[in-house]
Amino acid sequence: MLASSGDPVLLPRSTDEVARALALCNEAGQPVVPQGGMTGLAGGAIARGDEIALSLARFAGIEEIDAASATMTARAGTTLQAAQEAASAAGFELGARGSCQIGGNLATNAGGNRVIQSGTARDQVLGLEAVLASGAVLSSMTKMTKNNTGYDLKQLFIGSDGTLGIITRAVLRLHPPRGIRHTALVALDDYDAAVKLLRTLSSRFGNDIGAFEIMWPDFFDFGVALTAQARSPFAQAHPLYALVEHAGLDTTDQGEAFFAALAQALDSGLVRDAVLAQSVADARALWAVRECTAEFPARMDPVNFDVSLPIVSIGEFVDTCRAALDARRPSNRSYFFGHIGDSNLHVTVDGHSVPDVAHEDIYAFVYDMLAPYGGSVSAEHGVGSLKRAYLPLSRSPEELAAMRAIKAALDPKGILNPGKVI
Amino acid sequence: MLASSGDPVLLPRSTDEVARALALCNEAGQPVVPQGGMTGLAGGAIARGDEIALSLARFAGIEEIDAASATMTARAGTTLQAAQEAASAAGFELGARGSCQIGGNLATNAGGNRVIQSGTARDQVLGLEAVLASGAVLSSMTKMTKNNTGYDLKQLFIGSDGTLGIITRAVLRLHPPRGIRHTALVALDDYDAAVKLLRTLSSRFGNDIGAFEIMWPDFFDFGVALTAQARSPFAQAHPLYALVEHAGLDTTDQGEAFFAALAQALDSGLVRDAVLAQSVADARALWAVRECTAEFPARMDPVNFDVSLPIVSIGEFVDTCRAALDARRPSNRSYFFGHIGDSNLHVTVDGHSVPDVAHEDIYAFVYDMLAPYGGSVSAEHGVGSLKRAYLPLSRSPEELAAMRAIKAALDPKGILNPGKVI
Repeated sequence: MLASSGDPVLLPRSTDEVARALALCNEAGQPVVPQGGMTGLAGGAIARGDEIALSLARFAGIEEIDAASATMTARAGTTLQAAQEAASAAGFELGARGSCQIGGNLATNAGGNRVIQSGTARDQVLGLEAVLASGAVLSSMTKMTKNNTGYDLKQLFIGSDGTLGIITRAVLRLHPPRGIRHTALVALDDYDAAVKLLRTLSSRFGNDIGAFEIMWPDFFDFGVALTAQARSPFAQAHPLYALVEHAGLDTTDQGEAFFAALAQALDSGLVRDAVLAQSVADARALWAVRECTAEFPARMDPVNFDVSLPIVSIGEFVDTCRAALDARRPSNRSYFFGHIGDSNLHVTVDGHSVPDVAHEDIYAFVYDMLAPYGGSVSAEHGVGSLKRAYLPLSRSPEELAAMRAIKAALDPKGILNPGKVI
Repeated sequence: MLASSGDPVLLPRSTDEVARALALCNEAGQPVVPQGGMTGLAGGAIARGDEIALSLARFAGIEEIDAASATMTARAGTTLQAAQEAASAAGFELGARGSCQIGGNLATNAGGNRVIQSGTARDQVLGLEAVLASGAVLSSMTKMTKNNTGYDLKQLFIGSDGTLGIITRAVLRLHPPRGIRHTALVALDDYDAAVKLLRTLSSRFGNDIGAFEIMWPDFFDFGVALTAQARSPFAQAHPLYALVEHAGLDTTDQGEAFFAALAQALDSGLVRDAVLAQSVADARALWAVRECTAEFPARMDPVNFDVSLPIVSIGEFVDTCRAALDARRPSNRSYFFGHIGDSNLHVTVDGHSVPDVAHEDIYAFVYDMLAPYGGSVSAEHGVGSLKRAYLPLSRSPEELAAMRAIKAALDPKGILNPGKVI
C-alpha cells in the first residue's frame, strides 16, 4: 500500500489495512503521521525525519445516506465537497464545505464561517471509527443522537490531530436544506453594538442566522481595496463592520422579516448604516470583502492567529492588541476579523510590515496578551506542531498531565503523530 | 465535611474540599460514590459496603450569567430547576428542567423530551471543572464554542457516571427564550408515517419543533385511562400516536403556520387525524397522557428500558419486541413510547403481568432483541450498575478495552464509583 514515488506514504484502502499498517508500525516503533487533504494551517500533518505519512486518500466514498435518520456514513478520505454534493443530492445539507477531507476535518475539529448555524465538526459527528496505534479498531458507528453506554470515546479522536488514533469512517448528521440566503453588511459604532445586534438577531431568528462576521476597519479596507469594485459600499468610514447572513428553512422568502429587523436596528441607533444585498451578485460582492483572506498569502507574509476568547472580551482584546502592536512597531499592518458568535477571532500580522521581527516573536507577543482573558490559542485550526509551545497558555499543568496520561494509555509507544499537540 | 447522621456522606463546600477529600481517599484506597440529586434510574449513585458517598448538595449556586456569551456558570450541586429559574430571569432558557442536579445531569448525560430542540446535556456544556481521583483539579471553564487546544477532556466526564472524575462546576450554554408553545396530538397509520411527518416538520420548522413523542396504542390507552378525562380525544382507535409541540423564537404567534402544516399532512393522508390544543389547559391534557409514566411506579412493577437505535429501525424493533413478548408470555402488559427524533425508545414491562419471571430475565430477553439493530442499552439514563452486564451488547471488546485503559490512566486505584459502567 506504499505510494510509488517520493517520500514514503502509506495509502491504505480499508480500515483493515489501516489496522494492519499501524500494528506493524507499532511493533517496530515506527512513527506515523496521518494526512488528510493537507489544507491545515497548524502543521498537524507534516511528516519529518524518519516518520511515515499515512493518507486515507484511497479510502474515500460515501457508504450510506439514511434519510430517516438524517445521517451520512462516509470514509475518512472523502472530500468535504464530495460529501456536500451527495448530501445535497439527497435533499439535505452538511454543516461544512471545502476541499479538505472528512478525516482531517474531524481530527482537527475544524470550524468555519457557519459554525453559528450548524456547529463545529464535532457537532456533526454521531458515530466514528478510529484505529488505535496497536491496530485495534474502535468502531462506534452509531446513528443515534443519544447513546450513553460508557465513555464517549469518539470525542477523544475529534480535535486530537491524529495523536490518539486514525479516524477511518464517520457517521455525520445531515441538516434540512436552507432556503434563500439574504446577506447584509452593517456598520456599527463599536464592539458592544455588534454583540447586542448578534443577540437581538439570534433571539429572533435562532439558527436562521447563518453567519455573523465581524471586520475591523483595517481588515475591511484591505478587503474593499482587493475586490473588483475597489470602493466601499458605504459613503463614509465606520468603526466596525459586520457581514450578516440569514437563511431560513422556510421555502417562502423570509428576507422581508430579516431586513425589517435590520431596519429596526437602524431606527433604534444600534446600527449606523446597512447595505442589503438585492441579488446573488450583490451578496457575492459583500462576501468577497470578507473572503479577501484567500489573497493574504499572495499579498503579504501572513502571521496568522486563530484564537478564541469569551465573546464579551473580544472587543477589548482587539483594542489592547492593536494598541500594543502600534506602540511596539508603528509600522505594523495587522488585520482583525472573526466569527464572534462562536467566540472566534482571527488576527493576521503582515510579517513584511515588521521585517526585523521573527514570526516566533510575533506569536509570543500576541499570545501573551491573550492569556489574561482565558483565551485559547487555537479555535478552529488545531494545535499541530506550530502551536504546541503555546499550549500551556490555554491549558493548566493538570490538564496537560491528564492529556499525557490519555496519550500514554492509548498510544503507549508514542508512534502516532509524535511531537504534535502534546 | 461529613454529614451528621446515618451513612457517611461527604458534603464538600468547594472544589478545593472535593480535591482534598479525593486525595485522602485515593491515598487510603477508599472507594467514593458521587451523588447528585438521586433522581437516576440506573443505580449509578448508590453506595454499597465500605464505599463513602460524596454529595455536592452544599456546593450549589450560580456563579455568573454572561449575557453577551449567553452562558451560565454553575456549581455541580445546583438543581436544574434553580438553574432554569435563573436563566429565565436573565431572559434566556436552559436546555433541560427538573429536580436533579447539574453535576448528576452531566455525569449521566441526561436527555429528556426536548432533546430534539436543544440537544442532550453534553450539548449544553461549554466548560467543565472536574476533580480526578488523585485530587488534581481539571478546570476547563471556558465559555468558548470553539476551543481546539489539545484533547477535549470535558467530554470524558460527561456521561461517565462519575467513574473518571467528579464534576464540580460547569459553563452551560443559554438559549434565547421560546415564544408561544403549540401542541397537537396526531394519529398515524404506522411508524413510517411518523418518520415522514417528523422529517416534513423538521425541514420546515427546524428546532422550532420542540417535541415529537411517539406512543404506541397500549401506552396511549394506559395514559388516557389515567388522565382526568379518562377518554381518548379521538373517536376511534389508531395504530400510532404522536404528540408534537411547536415553539418558535418569534414573539408573534406562529401557531397558524404549524397548524397549517398539520392540516396539509391530514389532507395528503400522511396523518389520519389530529387534535390541536386550543388553550394551555388543552395542551396540559394532551401532555398528561404522555406523562402518565410518572404513575408507573404506583400502578405496576415497572421494568424500564431506555434504549436507542437507528430511527429507521425503531418501528420494526417495537413490532418484533411486542410479538416476541406476546408469544413468550401472552399475559404480558408492555408499554412502548419514545422520543424518536433522538433515536430514543422507552419500553416498560409490568413485572406484575409476568409474576413468575425475574426482572433480570426480562432485561436479557429484550436486550438480546436489541443487539441485531446496533442499538444501545442506554440512551439517556446512563449505565450505572444495573446495565453494566449488558454493556457488551452495545460496545465491542476493543471499545471496552479502551475504556478500561482510560479508567486506569485517570483513576489508577479505581476508587471512583467502583463497579459502575465498566
